[in-house]
Order: sequence, then C-alpha cells, then structure tokens
Amino acid sequence: MTNNTETIGLIAGGGQFPLLVAKGAAAQGNRVVAVFFKGHSNFEVSEYTDASVELKLGQLNKLISFFKNNGVSKVVMAGTINKPKALDIRPDFRAAKLLFKLATKGDDVLLRAIASEFEVEGMEVVGPHEYAPDLLTPSGFLTKRKPNDVESGDLAFGWKIARELGRLDIGQCVVVREGIVTAVEAIEGTDAAVKRGCELGGKGCCIVKVFKPGQEKRVDMPSIGLKTIQGMKELGATCLGVEAGKSLFFDLDESVQFADKYGITIVGLNQELIDKELS
Amino acid sequence: MTNNTETIGLIAGGGQFPLLVAKGAAAQGNRVVAVFFKGHSNFEVSEYTDASVELKLGQLNKLISFFKNNGVSKVVMAGTINKPKALDIRPDFRAAKLLFKLATKGDDVLLRAIASEFEVEGMEVVGPHEYAPDLLTPSGFLTKRKPNDVESGDLAFGWKIARELGRLDIGQCVVVREGIVTAVEAIEGTDAAVKRGCELGGKGCCIVKVFKPGQEKRVDMPSIGLKTIQGMKELGATCLGVEAGKSLFFDLDESVQFADKYGITIVGLNQELIDKELS
Repeated sequence: MTNNTETIGLIAGGGQFPLLVAKGAAAQGNRVVAVFFKGHSNFEVSEYTDASVELKLGQLNKLISFFKNNGVSKVVMAGTINKPKALDIRPDFRAAKLLFKLATKGDDVLLRAIASEFEVEGMEVVGPHEYAPDLLTPSGFLTKRKPNDVESGDLAFGWKIARELGRLDIGQCVVVREGIVTAVEAIEGTDAAVKRGCELGGKGCCIVKVFKPGQEKRVDMPSIGLKTIQGMKELGATCLGVEAGKSLFFDLDESVQFADKYGITIVGLNQELIDKELS
Repeated sequence: MTNNTETIGLIAGGGQFPLLVAKGAAAQGNRVVAVFFKGHSNFEVSEYTDASVELKLGQLNKLISFFKNNGVSKVVMAGTINKPKALDIRPDFRAAKLLFKLATKGDDVLLRAIASEFEVEGMEVVGPHEYAPDLLTPSGFLTKRKPNDVESGDLAFGWKIARELGRLDIGQCVVVREGIVTAVEAIEGTDAAVKRGCELGGKGCCIVKVFKPGQEKRVDMPSIGLKTIQGMKELGATCLGVEAGKSLFFDLDESVQFADKYGITIVGLNQELIDKELS
C-alpha cells in the first residue's frame, strides 16, 4: 500500500481494472494522470485523473515525455490491451529499438523491458494491486462447498504440476481430473485450456491457476473473474484453485454467490493450505 | 530381437502395425496366435496366424485361456483400439476386478496392470518392436534438409521441456516456435496439440515428441507416420524431432520422401545428438 501523495502515471487498458486502480490511487490522495489507447482503453478512468493523453500503441517516447512533464513518480499498468492490428501500432524509434531487441521473446521479457525503460527515467513501476489491494485473491476456502477428498487431491496435484510448468516458463493453468492432467495451458490462454480440459475430462474437473515464478508481478498477474466461474458451471467443472495473494480476483463477491448457487468450490491456494488442509 | 521359436500371442488392434508384427514374428520362425476385436482389429493378421479367436473388449479371462490353451509364452500388443462405446465392452469378472482397482488411473498404469495379469500366468509381455525392429525411429538427420540454427535451438529446448513434462507424467509432445512453447500435449492427443500449437505459433514451428520416462515401452510407444508429416505441411511446421530408438516410425521412407519434397526436416533425437549437434 502506498500512502504518500504522489503523481501516478496510469497506462490504462480496457475493462474495470484501470478504473478500480485509478479510483484506489485517487482515494489514497494521489494525483493520477493517464495514457489511453483508442479502441483499447476504458476512458471512464478520466473521472479520476488530473490529466490524460491519447496515444497510439508503440508511442513509447511520447508516453514517457507525458509522464515526465507531469512529474510522474510511479507508473502503473492496468487493464487489457487486445492484440492489436498491425496498422494500429506506430512504434517510434525508442519502441522499435526495444521491440527489435526483444523480438520473439516471451511476454514477461517484453513487460520487464518496458518497465526498465521507465526506471532509467527515474520512475518506479509498481503493481496495480498496490492501489486495489481488495482484488488480490484471499487464501482459504472461499465458498460454502469445500473440496471433497478427490478434489483436495486434485488441487494439491494441480498446484504441484502448475508450479513446475511455471518454473519451465510454460503456462499458469492446468485442468485435472482425479489425478490426471487433462489440459495444460501454453499460449492459447486460460479459457481455451479450461474448455479443452473440461470437455476431455468430463464433469468434475479441477482447475488450478497459479502465479508463474519469475512472472512480472507488477504488470502481469493471473486473473480470475465471474466469467471463469460461469464457464465452469457450463463445463461441469466443480473446483477452482487460484494462487492467493498473487492473483487478481475480479467480482469476488458475485463469483462466490454464483459458485455457492451451483455447488462450485473456490479455494485461494498457498503452500501452507496445501500442506495443512489438502494433502 | 527374439530368435528362438516360440508361440507368440498377439493382441491385434487396427492398422498395419499388428500385421507387420505378425509377419515379423512368423518370419523369425515363431508360431503366432491372435486375438481380434470386431470393429477394431485388422483381420488380415490371420494370414500369419496358426489360430485366432474373436473376443469382445474386456473378456480378459477368455483371452488368457485362449493363450494358455495355445501354449503362448510371449504376449505382444500391437495396433490401435479405438475408444470403445460402452455397450461394446463386456468386462468379465477378472477384467472388472482389474478395472475397478485401476479406476481413473493413467494409461500406463492400466497397461502395466494388464501386462502383469499375463505375467502371473507365466507369459512374458514383450514389446511389438521386438518383431518389427525396422519400425524404431533411427537417430540422426533423416531428411535432406537439416535444421537451421533457430530450429536446432527449438529441438534442444523442446527435447528438454518434453522430457520434463514426461517426468511429470503429462504428455509426450510439445510444439515450439523460436523458444516459446506454443502447445503442450496432455490427453487431447498429439494431432490436436500439434494443430493448436502450429495455428497459434504460425509458420515455422518445431514439433518434438519423446518417450515418456517410465512409459510402458512394451505396450505403448510414441508413434509417428506419414500423416504426421502431411499434417506438418498443411500447418506450415518445418521441423520434427522424434526420440530415436524409443518411438515407432511408420512409413519412414515415404515420410522422408514427402518431407524432402516440401522442405521439412525430420530428426531422430537422443541426448548425444542434442549435446553434440544441436546445442
């Protein structure tokens, strides 16, 4: 939690997340300035900003100038940027140099490199959860329904496997059914992996999503929301384990209500819980 | 290679594989008796058999009696059994007991358990490659086109990742594009994983398929064939690495011809090749 009054530079993507971050940062007494991208950003964020600018993706130099001119000390990225069409990107020289260096590297590398571009300019990159701490997944059993013995085993097994996969810098998510891994997420995204694993595994699958060790927590945390739980209901999945404290849970209250209504279990996982309650 | 004349009990699935095994076993001077399953097995196998019986899937006791009555000393399983419809299975008591013990375990466990059912009856279960050694994937560069530097890196990386995944008892196959894993096979099968990974990764993907450490070599080896290479061409994949000596390569000559025609690279991988030629 950041308590001193500072100027926060928010790079705003789409969805409710940048709005919650801007609101949280402002509520803590900070001044917020924002960068928007047409067709990507949630412009409602401007309700909480003192200044904003609209840029094209890739205009890194302009972005940095805007932040410097506004006395930004901390930079936050929040919200989704959909995979852009080539014509929508206008990489300036600084961005092009960066992209060239990073060609074909993974997301983490790219995001970390962008973060260090701010750092060389004297701005600190902080995680958006600093201004929206309520979004961090709490630990423990979050729903009325607790995992049964089979699901407890699958959560512990999925936790172990997902962390090993993370260590190999593969995906964040696995689907498990009674000790068998039915899907591993690589780059297809969590939704596609969950759908495939549940269709192949049949009813009663467990989904486990974890923070990848070495993942750039400041700019890219695993996230879960109501849509995930609604998808589980459609697919007959009964249990979801998400890494506590290192993932973002949007609409937690509605998600838990929905899960309770349909007998779905949600657990905020950490090693202690795995060792004490699920093994 | 088995040289003594013996009676071989062949459990025949579909495709050319059981045919090649029966032919090879007979050519080595063995007597071959076979078990067929209607709608699954390649009945042409009977050309090389002294006796055969048609059973329903699950009739394990009848199968064992047939083998014992025919003096079978070695049991071989070869060929695919398509996922059966429930009504086609008639598990007798022995099979039911076995399935009950093994409910929800992985393929390896099931196959190993079936193998040990034969062993308690004094029959040895041997790998089908003993009678068709030409099917084992040779090591080295099998096509005219050799892997370029990027592909060499991807083969070495894919080899490492696929073996780690195998150690976790997940799939046998990964798709890699320039250092990024675009798909991991779990239970969806190699074809589906390859298709997904190549579609997400774009042209130039490398496919690596390995033997899972601990996999039951006698009854379940990774296999590759002309269809795989044809699929690679459709998907724009340029390089295939398969574990040498521990996988079955059907139609190797036609596959290499096809690959040569379309500039696809095929490599029979082992640790030595990785260390000396691809790192």
